[in-house]
Amino acid sequence: MEKEEKSLSLLKEGERLDVLKRENIQIIQSSTVFSFSLDAVLLADFANVPRKRKATIVDFCSGNGAVAFLLTGKTENPVIGVEVQDALIDMARRTVQLNQLEERVSFLHADINEITQLIRPDSVDVITCNPPYFKDLPSSTKNDLGAFTIARHEILLKLPELMEQTSRLLKMNGKAYFVHRPDRLLEVLDAMRANRLAPKRIRFIYPRVGKEANMMLLEAIKDGKNEGLHILPPLYVHDENREYTEEVQAILFGTE
Amino acid sequence: MEKEEKSLSLLKEGERLDVLKRENIQIIQSSTVFSFSLDAVLLADFANVPRKRKATIVDFCSGNGAVAFLLTGKTENPVIGVEVQDALIDMARRTVQLNQLEERVSFLHADINEITQLIRPDSVDVITCNPPYFKDLPSSTKNDLGAFTIARHEILLKLPELMEQTSRLLKMNGKAYFVHRPDRLLEVLDAMRANRLAPKRIRFIYPRVGKEANMMLLEAIKDGKNEGLHILPPLYVHDENREYTEEVQAILFGTE
Repeated sequence: MEKEEKSLSLLKEGERLDVLKRENIQIIQSSTVFSFSLDAVLLADFANVPRKRKATIVDFCSGNGAVAFLLTGKTENPVIGVEVQDALIDMARRTVQLNQLEERVSFLHADINEITQLIRPDSVDVITCNPPYFKDLPSSTKNDLGAFTIARHEILLKLPELMEQTSRLLKMNGKAYFVHRPDRLLEVLDAMRANRLAPKRIRFIYPRVGKEANMMLLEAIKDGKNEGLHILPPLYVHDENREYTEEVQAILFGTE
Repeated sequence: MEKEEKSLSLLKEGERLDVLKRENIQIIQSSTVFSFSLDAVLLADFANVPRKRKATIVDFCSGNGAVAFLLTGKTENPVIGVEVQDALIDMARRTVQLNQLEERVSFLHADINEITQLIRPDSVDVITCNPPYFKDLPSSTKNDLGAFTIARHEILLKLPELMEQTSRLLKMNGKAYFVHRPDRLLEVLDAMRANRLAPKRIRFIYPRVGKEANMMLLEAIKDGKNEGLHILPPLYVHDENREYTEEVQAILFGTE
């Protein structure tokens, strides 16, 4: 009851609380400003992070912090989220407060392109990132710089910049995890390799049986060998009844 | 009865006849010299060839001709196979004779690296190729130059050379189809793009549910845009009973 009151007092207009079930975290969302999607959940599930071994873990383009909060279920290490948008970092920090996660998750308010001012190069073990998916094409309206637009379009952060900064922060053999769209596979692979990131594992995600992939998860290793790429088993999101497949349900809600 | 005698008289020692069911073609194989595998069948199925519209269709690294013979079921155009190995082109040509396919399939005995001496550049609409999959690593024994070794290892034809010659032969907007191994995806994509071949569609093939992909089918378009890559639905080869899946059975035997 006390928690519920605290929760409500931390919410701003238009915001709501959703629950990350497996982690038992209440996360502040907003359908007008920002709410995370399945992509974030699958990315956090895909990332290999050391559970107990000491490691520096950073989540780029953190949004309202979903990936960072989800990672707390997989590691005892603190997780650092980086987000450039005021409104989103504000939401993320209130979620920290609400769940008393001050020792587990923190957020840096920063542009990824200037991240080395805040995080030392060659110091990070694992980076996760759910970046803007869409190229900022000339046809798209630059005037609409709402939070969703900046989160979805490469306005403030382009793919080569993302890979450059990822590579700068990572230790040798550090690992980076991305979720992106398959139609940009070639650009992703090129930008990785141009920045000493060797693609190691790719998992394609299909909305359901018989459809083309509409998402992909990638793992890269800094200074890894450009050999031995693995294409993991496909992941289907929905079954023939348009419900989440068992695998996705287990990722979302746990298997118990 | 007469055909059977003719068949047998065309066989050399150690050879056998297998049947391409959908095409009703008897194909000469040899477990010691060369026999085609599922890869060839999936490649021929994957390739888009004009059924009636006049088109020049070439199959590189033809082996005993499996892909070329399979393509006769999809097009009324003649198919030209290219193979460098004496023993294999001999098998392929006897299969032509055996099935009276002289008007439909022909074979050129040539090294792909010298193919423009026989086929005019910028003249081909569709190229298919099931190339050697393995790099000729220093550790592999160069003395074993049996037909299988040459067919499987990049001894006479390396990936960049394959893409270079493919690109030279193709007309603008001509299409190329390859089957290869996923661990070489990066090299394949690089070699394509270094030779004006834009990757357009990729289909990953999985031995069964839960396993990593062990084969991939690729479509590239000469002078196509390097945008809009499609990752097609996965193809599983075996079901949980280790039998061919329905989809593979349909490709192998037709749906009737």
